[in-house]
Amino acid sequence: MSTSGSMPASGSTPAPGSKSAPDASRRSERSRRAIFDAALALVSENGYARTTVEGIAARAGVGKQTIYRWWPSKAAVLLDAFLDLQDRAVEAMGGDAGSEIPDTGDLAADLKQVLRATVDEMNDPAFELPTRALAAEGITDPDLGARFTEALLEPQLQHYVRRIEAAREAGEVDPGTDPRLAVELLVGPLHHRWIHRTLPLTHAYADALVDHVLRGLAPRG
Amino acid sequence: MSTSGSMPASGSTPAPGSKSAPDASRRSERSRRAIFDAALALVSENGYARTTVEGIAARAGVGKQTIYRWWPSKAAVLLDAFLDLQDRAVEAMGGDAGSEIPDTGDLAADLKQVLRATVDEMNDPAFELPTRALAAEGITDPDLGARFTEALLEPQLQHYVRRIEAAREAGEVDPGTDPRLAVELLVGPLHHRWIHRTLPLTHAYADALVDHVLRGLAPRG
Repeated sequence: MSTSGSMPASGSTPAPGSKSAPDASRRSERSRRAIFDAALALVSENGYARTTVEGIAARAGVGKQTIYRWWPSKAAVLLDAFLDLQDRAVEAMGGDAGSEIPDTGDLAADLKQVLRATVDEMNDPAFELPTRALAAEGITDPDLGARFTEALLEPQLQHYVRRIEAAREAGEVDPGTDPRLAVELLVGPLHHRWIHRTLPLTHAYADALVDHVLRGLAPRG
Repeated sequence: MSTSGSMPASGSTPAPGSKSAPDASRRSERSRRAIFDAALALVSENGYARTTVEGIAARAGVGKQTIYRWWPSKAAVLLDAFLDLQDRAVEAMGGDAGSEIPDTGDLAADLKQVLRATVDEMNDPAFELPTRALAAEGITDPDLGARFTEALLEPQLQHYVRRIEAAREAGEVDPGTDPRLAVELLVGPLHHRWIHRTLPLTHAYADALVDHVLRGLAPRG
């Protein structure tokens, strides 16, 4: 899930020039964790524009050059911090980072499980505040928005697309179903409530969305 | 549609203390137009945070006190500028400002007409740039976001709700239809594409959305 080739993956890549690989690896992992936590905290508190690599380094207790050794820019650090945040959220819900949507053979149950977890995530301040800061920046900065959409959003949408393609294969939805459109019908309303804070995001709402969308996708006899 | 009781409506309310009502009314309307244009231009160019009442006044060629006579704050001017922008967009499409969604008795045709017009609006830079600036600010500022949602977004959503309620009365959709959920299924995916710039917003997409959503709402025999 890394977007920068030189970023240390969790404990697996010793920092360049290290003499003792295991110790350096532990130090790298600690630094990586501290940098991500600092980046997410600062972007939550001050917004994207006022977050700097210098500020992240100071808060994380590392040198600025440590960050620049692994990431080329502020945007790259934040992108990896968000990917890591997503992975941890998935793991906290009992899944594997980067894992597919479950396929128990019951599309409605599988989608409800994932949308309920998404609702929980959207309601969790640890996730919500930095994600709002990032979304706000991506809305007005097309380049940054495109990078975030490509690296963070599209991989998630593709998980849904593949689950709905599998359901189409299995005859659970109509053969004429457009999986991409179906996915947008599921996640679009959730995002709309979240971004514009119109009405509460609840498990009952997630369930109702799934039921309504699947009714429209039912095989036509 | 005004959100500030003292704002001059289009030519109908002379400025306080005017001696010659028609002349003052024309001057008020010219000032109002200049203030709205300046506010939308500045927020597009510099973002919400860096737009000031002083800057709007300078760009509009009016005194700061002229703005403060009609609006209590920057947020209030921008809110009215957006309401005015929306009204003009509706008028440019041949509708009446603040008008309901047409009811020709053909729900699919009526919704496609409105969603296609929404797509055109979202693709129009004159609308898109200030709206993105406002949306970005509303995402991270809960108070401002709540004001914009209440004054700008909810009235639009209620137009859809009433049209779907009418369709339910007419037996065009299932009696168990939740109009609010149906509306979110229509507008949520459009907003998702627009905000995250995932895929193009086209008339074909608007039509496909309407067809998919209405299939899920069809009366169950």
